[in-house]
Amino acid sequence: MPRTLSRYLPILDWGRRYDRSALTNDMIAAVIVTIMLIPQSLAYALLAGLPPEAGIYASIAPILLYAIFGTSRALAVGPVAVVSLLTASAVGQVAEQGTAGYAVAALTLAGLSGAFLVLLGVFRLGFLANFLSHPVIAGFITASGILIATSQLKHILGVEAHGHTLIEMVGSLLSHLGGINPITLVIGVAATAFLFWVRRGLKPLLRRMGAGPLAADIATKAGPVAAVVVTTLAVWAFGLADRGVAVVGSVPQALPPLTMPGLSPDLVRQLLIPAILISVIGFVESISVAQTLAAKKRQRIDPDQELIGLGAANLGAAFTGGYPVTGGFARSVVNFDAGAETPAAGAFTAAGLAIAAVALTPLVYYLPNATLAATIVVAVLSLVDLSILQKTWSYSRADFAAVAATILLTLTMGVEIGVASGVILSVLLHLWTTSRPHVAEVGLVPGTHHFRNIDRHDVHTDPRVLTLRIDESLYFVNARFLEDLVQDRVTEGCEVQHVVLMCSAVNAIDYSALESLEAVNHRLADMNVGLHLSEVKGPVMDRLKTTHFLDQLNGRVFLSQYDAWTALAQRPDRADAAE
Amino acid sequence: MPRTLSRYLPILDWGRRYDRSALTNDMIAAVIVTIMLIPQSLAYALLAGLPPEAGIYASIAPILLYAIFGTSRALAVGPVAVVSLLTASAVGQVAEQGTAGYAVAALTLAGLSGAFLVLLGVFRLGFLANFLSHPVIAGFITASGILIATSQLKHILGVEAHGHTLIEMVGSLLSHLGGINPITLVIGVAATAFLFWVRRGLKPLLRRMGAGPLAADIATKAGPVAAVVVTTLAVWAFGLADRGVAVVGSVPQALPPLTMPGLSPDLVRQLLIPAILISVIGFVESISVAQTLAAKKRQRIDPDQELIGLGAANLGAAFTGGYPVTGGFARSVVNFDAGAETPAAGAFTAAGLAIAAVALTPLVYYLPNATLAATIVVAVLSLVDLSILQKTWSYSRADFAAVAATILLTLTMGVEIGVASGVILSVLLHLWTTSRPHVAEVGLVPGTHHFRNIDRHDVHTDPRVLTLRIDESLYFVNARFLEDLVQDRVTEGCEVQHVVLMCSAVNAIDYSALESLEAVNHRLADMNVGLHLSEVKGPVMDRLKTTHFLDQLNGRVFLSQYDAWTALAQRPDRADAAE
Repeated sequence: MPRTLSRYLPILDWGRRYDRSALTNDMIAAVIVTIMLIPQSLAYALLAGLPPEAGIYASIAPILLYAIFGTSRALAVGPVAVVSLLTASAVGQVAEQGTAGYAVAALTLAGLSGAFLVLLGVFRLGFLANFLSHPVIAGFITASGILIATSQLKHILGVEAHGHTLIEMVGSLLSHLGGINPITLVIGVAATAFLFWVRRGLKPLLRRMGAGPLAADIATKAGPVAAVVVTTLAVWAFGLADRGVAVVGSVPQALPPLTMPGLSPDLVRQLLIPAILISVIGFVESISVAQTLAAKKRQRIDPDQELIGLGAANLGAAFTGGYPVTGGFARSVVNFDAGAETPAAGAFTAAGLAIAAVALTPLVYYLPNATLAATIVVAVLSLVDLSILQKTWSYSRADFAAVAATILLTLTMGVEIGVASGVILSVLLHLWTTSRPHVAEVGLVPGTHHFRNIDRHDVHTDPRVLTLRIDESLYFVNARFLEDLVQDRVTEGCEVQHVVLMCSAVNAIDYSALESLEAVNHRLADMNVGLHLSEVKGPVMDRLKTTHFLDQLNGRVFLSQYDAWTALAQRPDRADAAE
Repeated sequence: MPRTLSRYLPILDWGRRYDRSALTNDMIAAVIVTIMLIPQSLAYALLAGLPPEAGIYASIAPILLYAIFGTSRALAVGPVAVVSLLTASAVGQVAEQGTAGYAVAALTLAGLSGAFLVLLGVFRLGFLANFLSHPVIAGFITASGILIATSQLKHILGVEAHGHTLIEMVGSLLSHLGGINPITLVIGVAATAFLFWVRRGLKPLLRRMGAGPLAADIATKAGPVAAVVVTTLAVWAFGLADRGVAVVGSVPQALPPLTMPGLSPDLVRQLLIPAILISVIGFVESISVAQTLAAKKRQRIDPDQELIGLGAANLGAAFTGGYPVTGGFARSVVNFDAGAETPAAGAFTAAGLAIAAVALTPLVYYLPNATLAATIVVAVLSLVDLSILQKTWSYSRADFAAVAATILLTLTMGVEIGVASGVILSVLLHLWTTSRPHVAEVGLVPGTHHFRNIDRHDVHTDPRVLTLRIDESLYFVNARFLEDLVQDRVTEGCEVQHVVLMCSAVNAIDYSALESLEAVNHRLADMNVGLHLSEVKGPVMDRLKTTHFLDQLNGRVFLSQYDAWTALAQRPDRADAAE
């Protein structure tokens, strides 16, 4: 049993070998990550429409639980931008922002998401996440970045505005432009400009001034902390909060509370689909970060156990005043670069944040929302990558269509419809591309045993033998295509006496395709034409042998195409074909 | 333009070469088919819940229009059992049987179905019908046969009963058993037994008595006509209609009327999905009959033009008092066997039915509904084929699941949910089976250039070179599977210095899989392991060349696996791998 136990509790594995060196490295990483997380957690809570402390709480219990159940050594779990946006969109549909019902619904969303992830993990259904293709994810994240940045403009301008789609947001912003608060605007624009400079200009500057790459990187990541400190001091010193600058205000000075997610059937029904969506998107993001970091140290990630780790983290968030969380890219990379060796680094980060929650919350009273909005805008604009449109266009039109549709629908119809349409469209496009497989008529390359496309190469052919190489598995979506194709080719070429299907690239034949092959066989027999197969793969052949198809075949199965050719071609008369 | 014109109007092709011999053959076929169609048309109208004349009308204009636009020489279009059942189910949801609204809704259904089929044909979207896999069709038709036979029991027992699912029907029948009309029961059971005997016993008997196969077949097909004549005379002679035997009653003595389908937005919205379903199922049935018959004479069927032909037939039905139609199996085979050479046979059949509609309708006044029900029961029980369950079980569990779910859901939830679930399930099962592709680790067969699975064959391997043959196209559903697999294998085998992906069966790599390969490449580089490809197909290579993947590849692309083996294996040290 210990092996099974350590599968479900990876902490038993790394915990046993924990030593002083690992402790030191983990502590250093934890300090760095904690400092970075304080403003980030507050900002993402703002984005999710929740009180600022929810962001801090969502980083404490979840980190601890992931440290126990997760398999990645470096993944840092907590609120992230895209999941915060999805939370705002889902919870905004069932409750008014700022009400108690809103916070409870966010807990429910985290609870449902956690339960769903744990279920997927226990039943080892992680592969379901693969339905989200890379183009759909890329399109969705780019569109989300644009939506998030737009949603923060109201804080930077100091106006009221609402909406969940780009058009609603921009319309609402424009209609409120008259109410711009000039001081808020100055703070917001200055903070944004500063943070952009930190990201683009500071790091090269520090390197030129002789700083090491790690130090330069950490200083850059500390940019938001500097912006927070300076703008908070400015608001406090000049009494700007009384002049209309929105600030974070009073945050409870306490450890995460024990909370109970709302479980009314109505609420659960309304939040179930968004919870599944958040789970899957969060999981996909998290697993790719975890895999990338693990590979750098030749470590192993168990995707199904990751589901359990992330599920536990979300359940933790649901019962401690948080909201849906996942493994974040930026924080995990900082954690990894800062030298974290084990998930204990996460536990120390949680402790650091708990101290901050108890001791430091009064200090953020005068922190302007505009500064938090600026940190969000600068962070998410790095997610926006429209080059994916150009890349997929040049690679494959089907992938381009999936990206473009996902971006367009996410921006105009909202995050849920956007990603759902993307998934459905990529499945349909896949079915469509495989519905008309590449089929080449092949002939013998003179002097060899190889067969190549007659349109591309100068090859030997025989008008009585039609050899088709099918470059696709045969299944229901393309089964009838094959029927039509063979019938067309044979009725065109009246001399044809043998059809050979070269199956070297046919990885599977499903029951529909089997019936199509039977139909082709009968129809060719009616036309007095033989049907032969060559180079059938082992697993496919095993399956065909369980049927009567091979007995009824009006022709032969050849191990190699060359055998088929020598047996069928270049003979004077083969009217006796059907042997 | 004449070529394009004759593509859309196949009649211009065969009409030009029409001669006396074809005329004679077509006339003979038409007489035989007309006699068979009269009771069948009345019976299917009863099944669809429509007045009997609707069945006759649905066989006149549609046959003529198909003769002009269709490409099959032998297909006979008209009411068929499964489409009649679907009509009853769809129209029953918007109107009460027996009302004028019911008949109008049936016209609307035919009109929508016709418009949809024409659209598919004009935009050459016939391949969409391929989403209906053979197991789903087989399961659906079997379940429909059971449903139809059950729905007719009420006519044979002479009771009232309702319901669209098996449970509803059986429950309703049981609760009405007290009201059985004994005379109806005798007629119904006698007719059913007689028709079963005609089907099973008469043909062999006639053959033994020296009749030719065609004559025996036609006599067998005329069985329903005999049952109709005998039971009608019995009801008339003994005045049974006054003793509670339900009869067809008065049928208007007229040519098909000009009718207008209802086009209120509400009605159209309610019938749109059923119309699409009927179109697709009707098309799939029709095209497979047409292909089978065409193959026997080495003729060509154009699936997209078939859509236009069937669409025109349904539009014709909508404007002449009919209901949805399609190419029927039984009638087409009779037509073909009786020697029909061109679609003109269909035109003559239409003329015969028009004469019947004007002259013969008074004769069916005393025709008992029980006889019509008997003809339906006997006809549809030949559709029920539960052996498909056993066949798919032994061939592939995924196909079995699709059949079983379709049968079960069609019987218990109704035809629309049944077939829709079947389609969705077969797509999901396909994605699932391709999500975990067969991947074999291969080694060199001694003394050859061939590579085979190391688990099945005794082959040469090298612990530093891991060669994986992937037996599936790489696309988003299995992209992450590959990432996980390679990472697992490499972290397990610490000596591995080279990973070779043998791509002989990889027919396509989509953008998701490309990004996965890039991730694998970077991760392997981080582990100081080279990534190589071998036997990449032409079209796949063409596409990879449009990207930066090949430049960044931490290894090489080999034309053959043997080249890869000789370059990478059996050398003392290859830490300089990434060349």
